[in-house]
Amino acid sequence: MRVLVDGHEDGAINPADRGFNYGDGLFETLAVRNGQARFVDWHLERLATGAARLGIPLPDAVLLKDEVARACPGDRGVVRVVLTRGSGPRDYRPPREPRPLRVVSGSPWPERDPACWTEGVRLRWCETRLGRNPRLAGIKHLNRLEQVLARAEWAGDEVAEGLMMDEGGNVIGGTRTNLFAIFEDGLATPALDQCGVAGVMRCAFRRWAAGQGIAIAERRLPAEELAGARGLLLTNSLIGAWPVRALAERVFDLDPRVAAFNAWLERR
Amino acid sequence: MRVLVDGHEDGAINPADRGFNYGDGLFETLAVRNGQARFVDWHLERLATGAARLGIPLPDAVLLKDEVARACPGDRGVVRVVLTRGSGPRDYRPPREPRPLRVVSGSPWPERDPACWTEGVRLRWCETRLGRNPRLAGIKHLNRLEQVLARAEWAGDEVAEGLMMDEGGNVIGGTRTNLFAIFEDGLATPALDQCGVAGVMRCAFRRWAAGQGIAIAERRLPAEELAGARGLLLTNSLIGAWPVRALAERVFDLDPRVAAFNAWLERR
Repeated sequence: MRVLVDGHEDGAINPADRGFNYGDGLFETLAVRNGQARFVDWHLERLATGAARLGIPLPDAVLLKDEVARACPGDRGVVRVVLTRGSGPRDYRPPREPRPLRVVSGSPWPERDPACWTEGVRLRWCETRLGRNPRLAGIKHLNRLEQVLARAEWAGDEVAEGLMMDEGGNVIGGTRTNLFAIFEDGLATPALDQCGVAGVMRCAFRRWAAGQGIAIAERRLPAEELAGARGLLLTNSLIGAWPVRALAERVFDLDPRVAAFNAWLERR
Repeated sequence: MRVLVDGHEDGAINPADRGFNYGDGLFETLAVRNGQARFVDWHLERLATGAARLGIPLPDAVLLKDEVARACPGDRGVVRVVLTRGSGPRDYRPPREPRPLRVVSGSPWPERDPACWTEGVRLRWCETRLGRNPRLAGIKHLNRLEQVLARAEWAGDEVAEGLMMDEGGNVIGGTRTNLFAIFEDGLATPALDQCGVAGVMRCAFRRWAAGQGIAIAERRLPAEELAGARGLLLTNSLIGAWPVRALAERVFDLDPRVAAFNAWLERR
């Protein structure tokens, strides 16, 4: 496993970097399975969307893919790609000709209890809410204090994830996962036009579901609506999909379609 | 001028630092005038408030003051203090025993046109709004993409600052300044319990005003109310107070109390 700073091993970050000083940048977290970075093109597509939104020049995709492979040369692992606007003077105003910084770092594959996939996970509600900002919604930028505070709300491994609402009481997703709710008349996933991150595995699950003829509505999802759900599932680039066993006191049956999706993911 | 990373000159930031990866930290910007860091105790007090809010252990105040002096040993300059939760594994969850990182860096005093103080500055409205989050409001954390996007909305020096509203249309302040509006019946400054940064110079101006018998209401300030203001002023740790000459098409008279405050500030 390696850390590549602008392509160089064991580099370090300039204290004047705008990612460090303002969170002025983006990131991606990729799963490496069977020696391949999974959905790498979709990750780079989302990075490009974020870079366009923030006005950060995008590094060459071939270069990035090469660095992803170098950072995690083994069979499985995790690669994090960070792209910042680079260094600049002490000023919120972006430099006219930014020289973006990229940090591509590999880490070992996180081993988790297989029961998370077979028996489902336990969720809780987070008190920390997500502020709304359409200009930052959907993209995976480096301003993640809301997620940090939410994740700090509980300790221990019994609860696998916390659900977050926006200021208006709509559920947006987990601290590091996207949410799908299963209702009698179909599936629903929160609209992410005001806050939240549009995950790559969320996208994969929707495409798989479309291929299976499963309709998924993307819409506002007031938190109290989850009381009427038959089931819940979470997606994330590393975990694929987790069925939800319980949310606070409410217990759910597992939906066999979650396992079907994970099996499809493994076969790819 | 020096950059001190955990007290060491010319240090660099670990790519695993949580400030870099999540904006998980705080900062302060101090003016050094006549060889002294202005309002250093108030800056350290706000840093302590933010550290308590985020759960980041606070470095010793004597150590920080010493590093501020070392970073900017001259007569005047600017010192930026960044405090992050330090390095950690790839996980939003804060490490149980964080080892915070501090970066204290000096830079030259920014020379600005004296007319900003004597003739006032021109403002514009920013389209980028501030998301509301009471848990992050008031403190000077490292998640500053909203300010970066707002400051990127205009170029050139004719407009000195842009005013930002929250999602509900209340004015909160400038991209790097706090706002005071002067009405017939007294002054008002936006409440910062939902978003915005409670500036040290805002605090200084309020205390000075209290000593002068000038009442200042801290409250919600719908943007359209500014149309009824007789004048506006901005505060910031480096600039002191700027009177506002114009906001978009609206022109204001200058209030002599702004100059009185700046004179008091210089005499301290």
